[in-house]
Amino acid sequence: MIYMDNAATSWPKPNSVYTKVLKTMKKYGANPGRSSHTMAVEAANIILYGREMLCQLFNISDPFRMIFTFNTTDSLNLAIKGILKEGDHVVTTSMEHNSVIRPLMHLADFGIETTIVPADSQGLIDPKDIEKSIKPNTRLIVTTHASNVTGTLLPIEEIGAIARNYGMYYLLDAAQTAGCLAMDLSKLPVDLVAMPGHKGLLGPQGTGVLYIREGIELKQIREGGTGSLSESIYQPDLMPDRYESGTLNTPGIAGLGAGVEYILNYGQEKITKHIANLEKLFINAFSQIEGVRIYGPTNMKQRTGIISINIWDRDSREIVNILSQKYNIATRGSLHCSPLAHDTIGTKEQGTVRFSPGIYTTLDEVKTCIKAVGEISRKIKIRSI
Amino acid sequence: MIYMDNAATSWPKPNSVYTKVLKTMKKYGANPGRSSHTMAVEAANIILYGREMLCQLFNISDPFRMIFTFNTTDSLNLAIKGILKEGDHVVTTSMEHNSVIRPLMHLADFGIETTIVPADSQGLIDPKDIEKSIKPNTRLIVTTHASNVTGTLLPIEEIGAIARNYGMYYLLDAAQTAGCLAMDLSKLPVDLVAMPGHKGLLGPQGTGVLYIREGIELKQIREGGTGSLSESIYQPDLMPDRYESGTLNTPGIAGLGAGVEYILNYGQEKITKHIANLEKLFINAFSQIEGVRIYGPTNMKQRTGIISINIWDRDSREIVNILSQKYNIATRGSLHCSPLAHDTIGTKEQGTVRFSPGIYTTLDEVKTCIKAVGEISRKIKIRSI
Repeated sequence: MIYMDNAATSWPKPNSVYTKVLKTMKKYGANPGRSSHTMAVEAANIILYGREMLCQLFNISDPFRMIFTFNTTDSLNLAIKGILKEGDHVVTTSMEHNSVIRPLMHLADFGIETTIVPADSQGLIDPKDIEKSIKPNTRLIVTTHASNVTGTLLPIEEIGAIARNYGMYYLLDAAQTAGCLAMDLSKLPVDLVAMPGHKGLLGPQGTGVLYIREGIELKQIREGGTGSLSESIYQPDLMPDRYESGTLNTPGIAGLGAGVEYILNYGQEKITKHIANLEKLFINAFSQIEGVRIYGPTNMKQRTGIISINIWDRDSREIVNILSQKYNIATRGSLHCSPLAHDTIGTKEQGTVRFSPGIYTTLDEVKTCIKAVGEISRKIKIRSI
Repeated sequence: MIYMDNAATSWPKPNSVYTKVLKTMKKYGANPGRSSHTMAVEAANIILYGREMLCQLFNISDPFRMIFTFNTTDSLNLAIKGILKEGDHVVTTSMEHNSVIRPLMHLADFGIETTIVPADSQGLIDPKDIEKSIKPNTRLIVTTHASNVTGTLLPIEEIGAIARNYGMYYLLDAAQTAGCLAMDLSKLPVDLVAMPGHKGLLGPQGTGVLYIREGIELKQIREGGTGSLSESIYQPDLMPDRYESGTLNTPGIAGLGAGVEYILNYGQEKITKHIANLEKLFINAFSQIEGVRIYGPTNMKQRTGIISINIWDRDSREIVNILSQKYNIATRGSLHCSPLAHDTIGTKEQGTVRFSPGIYTTLDEVKTCIKAVGEISRKIKIRSI
């Protein structure tokens, strides 16, 4: 099978990830941070190692600012609900995933107002539009780093500078970029960064991360046992315990640590370049196939890792099924949980067929995909599909 | 190493659990429910299989009433916050884990009042005391099935009958019993059951379950992408999607499915009996060692799977360290995240040393533990430790 669905979950993982997950379950299977026996201490060390790897990749010194969550959605809910209160206003964009939009729509019932800044038809956001949307009660700007539909990169440095300038928080949804693009969190003007463990960071599913900049306190969204201050019936204020109630996913975090270690050894820049090269190949080839429409920016510098297309007027799900069944190529169709992005680019009915290459995608695999799309397009034209 | 910390996380797991986790990561590593390509469908089937195994074990017909969460704490937060609203009153007990007590204390700031029914010094709860605590605005009774400190079983059938009688909801925290004791959820008068995947159910960490009885609707605690109704910017009402936003822990759930399958094949009753036998052996032997104080019920029928002791007046953490370092025995000391239970049994300062045998614990291991405790107790008496 040719796997082109890395924007949903990266696959395969480095061998070291599989090995580390298995070893952790078999040899360090105790509960981290809950006792002082040898295996519990070893489990706790695995968790700390995961935090340290993330700190190294994102250039952060305090591992306790890296919070482990269930997934990016969990991270985003913690960040959004943790920072906002009744009467606040939020600025976001039309390129967001439902993991940002749905919590914000939910909060509308609790007196929190949202402005959705529209992108242009390539998914591009003008930072000036963000600035114009700011109100006296704006507390938070939240944007994705790159659209999961079009791959459009958002101008996060400019948006962050605006947030700093106006004294508000900037939450970055790095679902499509963490582990794919270099990010120096010691320099970037972002305050909160939500990341999946199971996409670019090459860890297993069931892992998410929220980076919380020093000095920021959030309300927690879960209270429970933390293995710390057990004498208290109130949630402790300690970092990272306040936000990590209950038993963590130790094998998952072990795998995530191994995934990040792999990126550090392999080189973030090399990964970025590899994916950018494949993306360019896709875009160049698709733009020459009759009947194929490519979405997102035409300027390669404004996009990353995701190639969304449609073939003639066919429903994207139909194309995904043909690609899977006839060509053994795994892509994703429909709306990718981002309805506003499809409103923006005009594909709410058709959806898009999304190709998302990964670290292990080969040139030959991309060529096979291109050939398949060409064939499908020709067959649709002569109505033989 | 002799592992006596199964009440925190069961270890080791059946081999089929390791194999299933690894196979899922390697062969079915796509995102479940997010696309129609073969591997995504296979991943979705694994999730469904996990639900079906749980349904079989707990005698439930609708797999979509079994919600997958991050851990028991996540399940309890969803159940508690999902059902309560301002002005409500909750009845709980002094034997609860902080995963129940801390959310309730948090909700006190939002106009939700809690009555904590005290247990006796063995951790026993009189259902009449629960009934007496009911007020006109009581919406929920929440209790543990068995104390994680003393192993005391709570009279859940009687408590559930009271809840039914008064028309209120009963949330059961089955952290210590799911997979250890038979539970027929088609008959038990419980409405919501929170369970860990990684304890008695023999799955990996990073997995939790919430059973939601037919007809009960909760407010969700996380909004986000669900792979369903993607055209909507509002959280869908569908089961189980409403409560499962974001990418699930597919490898973890695969392992949990394998763990439950193992229990079904091995026999729940056989597991219950095995652990009960080891418990009896522990209790009988410990009661004959000078200086050892055993907590919890003296009647074996009122307790399950957990043996908490202290040796003379020594801090439980000191004993845990000696057991780990000198005898290579893994136990847990201190308060086990249940401060009120320690208030109840009078061990808030000392904590308790907890032995929790599991499905793979052998008679010989128990004997070694008993011998070690005897030796430690004698050495403390003659002040050579």
